[in-house]
Amino acid sequence: MVLGILGGGQLGRMTAFAAARLGVDVRVLAPSASGPTAPLAHVTVGDWEDASVLGPWAEACDVVTVESEWAPADRVPAGVPVRPGVEALVAIRHKGRQRARLAEHGLPQPAHVWAATRGEALAALERFGAVVCKRFEGSYDGYGNATCRTEADVQAAWDDLSAEDGLLVEAFVPFEAEAAVTVARRPTVDGRGGAAVVYPVVRSEHRDHRLWAAWAPAGFPESVEAEARRVALATVEALDVVGVATVEVFVAEGGAVLVNEVAPRPHNTAHLTIDASHTSQFENHVRAVLDWPLGDPGLRVPAACVVNVLGEREGGVAPGLSDALAVDGASVHLYGKTEVRPARKMGHVTATAPTVEAARERAEAAAEAVRL
Amino acid sequence: MVLGILGGGQLGRMTAFAAARLGVDVRVLAPSASGPTAPLAHVTVGDWEDASVLGPWAEACDVVTVESEWAPADRVPAGVPVRPGVEALVAIRHKGRQRARLAEHGLPQPAHVWAATRGEALAALERFGAVVCKRFEGSYDGYGNATCRTEADVQAAWDDLSAEDGLLVEAFVPFEAEAAVTVARRPTVDGRGGAAVVYPVVRSEHRDHRLWAAWAPAGFPESVEAEARRVALATVEALDVVGVATVEVFVAEGGAVLVNEVAPRPHNTAHLTIDASHTSQFENHVRAVLDWPLGDPGLRVPAACVVNVLGEREGGVAPGLSDALAVDGASVHLYGKTEVRPARKMGHVTATAPTVEAARERAEAAAEAVRL
Repeated sequence: MVLGILGGGQLGRMTAFAAARLGVDVRVLAPSASGPTAPLAHVTVGDWEDASVLGPWAEACDVVTVESEWAPADRVPAGVPVRPGVEALVAIRHKGRQRARLAEHGLPQPAHVWAATRGEALAALERFGAVVCKRFEGSYDGYGNATCRTEADVQAAWDDLSAEDGLLVEAFVPFEAEAAVTVARRPTVDGRGGAAVVYPVVRSEHRDHRLWAAWAPAGFPESVEAEARRVALATVEALDVVGVATVEVFVAEGGAVLVNEVAPRPHNTAHLTIDASHTSQFENHVRAVLDWPLGDPGLRVPAACVVNVLGEREGGVAPGLSDALAVDGASVHLYGKTEVRPARKMGHVTATAPTVEAARERAEAAAEAVRL
Repeated sequence: MVLGILGGGQLGRMTAFAAARLGVDVRVLAPSASGPTAPLAHVTVGDWEDASVLGPWAEACDVVTVESEWAPADRVPAGVPVRPGVEALVAIRHKGRQRARLAEHGLPQPAHVWAATRGEALAALERFGAVVCKRFEGSYDGYGNATCRTEADVQAAWDDLSAEDGLLVEAFVPFEAEAAVTVARRPTVDGRGGAAVVYPVVRSEHRDHRLWAAWAPAGFPESVEAEARRVALATVEALDVVGVATVEVFVAEGGAVLVNEVAPRPHNTAHLTIDASHTSQFENHVRAVLDWPLGDPGLRVPAACVVNVLGEREGGVAPGLSDALAVDGASVHLYGKTEVRPARKMGHVTATAPTVEAARERAEAAAEAVRL
């Protein structure tokens, strides 16, 4: 079985390692020979926008998957299954279409307006009180988003972020917590939706609009966790994602769960599943896209916490790990990136422990001690 | 940091995966382009007995390690650290020298005779009642060994197994159980022995002289486990092994612990540490040979069991994993070998569970269900 991965970043790398363990032959199409997939033998370096590169590469694969919703899945030659499907990717790439699809299926999400004009954006501010303006395409980790409380804020956001078809303006949710639920789902067969497994709810904390830490158990009331899991599974089914997808949610005061956004691929909040779950998100992604039975997503440890290792400067990398490795119970995962940049995701640390507090303390201590 | 691994089998493969996760650049010298290290980019295919191959390969590495005590560590150019050290490997390769070294350090082991002649072997049988005759070099997994209860048995063993310097004849130990203890140890610094960590005792069960299953916790009385750990650490120190080493022991009636033999490398009984320990044997091997702080060897799950996936026929491999993957809580690890042979180690399954019994049941069910 040959699995093709479009993308040479850390998600492709960790997917490839999981696939190799199952005896799957992995081929990667990546823009560069260095970087996270460099330790792998079958990396084709080339421009995936070039059909003469993408076509022959894909045709040597039994199944192609992507590490980013922006990979050109729609240009893979017909006859090679692409998972998640092109329709799911297209719906998810555009935040307006993503919201519309979820609304069609009655899924809970923040009130929002697809503002085609500056006037509609200003009207949304008046209606909602405070809003988050989002670029329809290409926004992530705080890029392409702006929280607006005044008309001047909205005017500036319109100038910065609007595209030909406008801007997504969402009601600001005064959430109590952010959480994420990862789902793995097999392909639809004979019109029946694919079998799926749902990971435990992960609680997440962001700093500077970037994921700082994520941990499980999430510690919400059982009814809230059940609702988050229900919403996540229904969201993945509504979008017909195959493979793993993570649904990021707001938990509002009173316990309501609202979908923030969907990533149709392995996700940072679920990196802790490598060390903490019976079957990691990466292995279940491989199993799902190959239409193999899914593994148990449950935790095999009492608690786990993942903390990102972010770049803090510009330059070449020379890892100094001694202090990080000296923290008991912490697993250091570096991504093999040769160049560091401020805020670049260079790796992560997962700690497992008897309690979330202990896991978080260890993970933060070890992540802080990594020198790059 | 560039780590060279002499050997392209499953131990090299799993060591390489652990090293990559720590951002270490791995180079492998292997006899073949296919096989377990094939998914890795930096594999040099060549004859390691050829100095013109081994020399330049080793000189591109910061540290060289081996996946087998038979790798030509002694031919690596001076100036490149080889770990474990050449002296340790030389002492361990020859079962007579291995026993002699342990005896010098007062370590408990079966009574034995270095029989230089057929008559000495027969005298040992008379003295011990039942014996195990072992070829000095190259015996493993039941090859090169013979349990002898009669003179005719010893005569046959002498004919089959003796070398120029004779044969090792050991008293047969009517053991209650077999166990293994893995130790990771850093290099000696300024004449002081390297820091070491000792893994939990693993209980093992062999079938047809081959490892069938291994599990932890081992379930011996605490005093027996403490003695096994003490003996393992003292053995590794006596032999001055750097890296991981596994000490296989007999637990005799009454709880005495006797050293059976020593493997100066990652070991099959400790494969469960990938899924069950805070730090796997492979990661601690990498850390030890690079002289980095060692990780916590403790279990992060209540119980775990590993069962080997052995070949059952001759031919090409086409893995059928569906039934195995459907067993919850079982992690399947295949080694990417393209040819199957009867009894060849093709992979392993580790299950983690609340109890050893549940872990073993899951691991056996999943291993049995793998089709190759």
